Amino acid sequence: MQIIENIADLKKIIKEWKSQGLSIGYVPTMGYLHEGHLSLIKKASSNDKVVVSIFVNPMQFGVNEDLESYPRDLQRDAKLCENEGVAVLFAPSVLEMYPKGFSTYVDMNSLTDKLCGAKREGHFRGVCTVLMKFFHLIEPNTAYFGQKDAQQCAVVKHMVEDLNLNLNIEICPIVREEDGLAKSSRNVYLNEDERKAALVLSRAVFLAQNLIQKGEREGKIILKAMREELEKEKLARIDYIELVNPKTMENLERIEDSVLGALAVYIGKTRLIDNFLMQSLKS
Amino acid sequence: MQIIENIADLKKIIKEWKSQGLSIGYVPTMGYLHEGHLSLIKKASSNDKVVVSIFVNPMQFGVNEDLESYPRDLQRDAKLCENEGVAVLFAPSVLEMYPKGFSTYVDMNSLTDKLCGAKREGHFRGVCTVLMKFFHLIEPNTAYFGQKDAQQCAVVKHMVEDLNLNLNIEICPIVREEDGLAKSSRNVYLNEDERKAALVLSRAVFLAQNLIQKGEREGKIILKAMREELEKEKLARIDYIELVNPKTMENLERIEDSVLGALAVYIGKTRLIDNFLMQSLKS
Repeated sequence: MQIIENIADLKKIIKEWKSQGLSIGYVPTMGYLHEGHLSLIKKASSNDKVVVSIFVNPMQFGVNEDLESYPRDLQRDAKLCENEGVAVLFAPSVLEMYPKGFSTYVDMNSLTDKLCGAKREGHFRGVCTVLMKFFHLIEPNTAYFGQKDAQQCAVVKHMVEDLNLNLNIEICPIVREEDGLAKSSRNVYLNEDERKAALVLSRAVFLAQNLIQKGEREGKIILKAMREELEKEKLARIDYIELVNPKTMENLERIEDSVLGALAVYIGKTRLIDNFLMQSLKS
Repeated sequence: MQIIENIADLKKIIKEWKSQGLSIGYVPTMGYLHEGHLSLIKKASSNDKVVVSIFVNPMQFGVNEDLESYPRDLQRDAKLCENEGVAVLFAPSVLEMYPKGFSTYVDMNSLTDKLCGAKREGHFRGVCTVLMKFFHLIEPNTAYFGQKDAQQCAVVKHMVEDLNLNLNIEICPIVREEDGLAKSSRNVYLNEDERKAALVLSRAVFLAQNLIQKGEREGKIILKAMREELEKEKLARIDYIELVNPKTMENLERIEDSVLGALAVYIGKTRLIDNFLMQSLKS
């Protein structure tokens, strides 16, 4: 496996692969890899070559967010990638990605003002911009994203469609701890008590899924049940709970064919997200 | 030559060419082609295949601008392209480019707030967004732009650099009528008197170039001379005259190494632009 830090070296390798007609699978990450990321890398291995990027992207962090404290461990990440047969680990510096005078951005007028976008101003502008750069640099046939970041998945798919990018986006399911907690690099922020309290997110998710499976379609009733579950946990503070159309992110009063149930909850100072996606509910 | 109106057909051809390793030269236009465009197409003919797009892009027109009246003549344009050996003329509909739900855009925080950008709000957002789409669809090795749209050239180059697009941008010189008027599709708006009056733009341009060639470096003096020349013409109303750094579009009080002199002038109701670029003035 090659660990590459600068764009010129990366471009040489990509050009070489392209000239050989090799397919490229790409997994964008902010590092501190967990089994969620590894599931994406495993999926990407159906391509001839797998590229993983590790970049804690300042542009997608708000001023009061955890950019500085975000966990980093390149050595550990590199070993994990090597074990999975990754061909190139691309880990550029901030200056390599955003040199002096950088001023271009990609953004959208829909999707991004809901859920996490409503709470994290400029977050999806940062996500779209950095991904556009990575997509141009890596020229993947397919890029892999985790359903855990449900809104990001919708935003990226929409961007790819709107701007006619020549690549596939594949969304992979949430990977959970045995007790249900969705895997996240931010889980390391939790102390012992908070780790237990954090289970309330997945409990609320499973509760809602059960209600819908049993036939409940009224948004208000499902949201009320989720809210009550979350409020049982004293260390939890709800940021949002929403039931939305998975494509448009518009709120659903009543569930028809499909639903994305998404929540963000502070456990102490740590903001965690979780969600469920249910489709083809009519049939 | 193939005239293609839909994206799916275009993609098939591009994919075929790419698989054969052919190079693609691309000339984006809004149609109503003149010799300026044809000079770009001639330049693009050094590639294996030339694609010309014709699309009057609503996103780059302001609400009170000439989107509706902008001159169009696809049949005439097609003949001109065919004569130049163009392989594909891509002329999509507005709905093909901006289908229902379209909401993504590309924009920048620098360059675009000066000159034409200051006068035409959202203009360069429209330009960047549509070009990003065309670049992804056509996958050119090189795209060709006319120096006439000097700010557009700077913006496009900056976008390509910032977002790591894998293509070259080549800028071609302004093509002028025999009497000096810069070629523009908008020249057809001019009546006989206005056509004569419009010469004041190129006169101001040549005047400034002469002053600089003779050693003048003070911005104020050059601008004053240009302004006085323009004010002699009663049908002319100055929109802006500026001397700027050609890369950053920042105003220059004193000319050092290089200068872009740019002006926009209304002749009657028609807004025309012209400019000159002078480089390596130190040596």
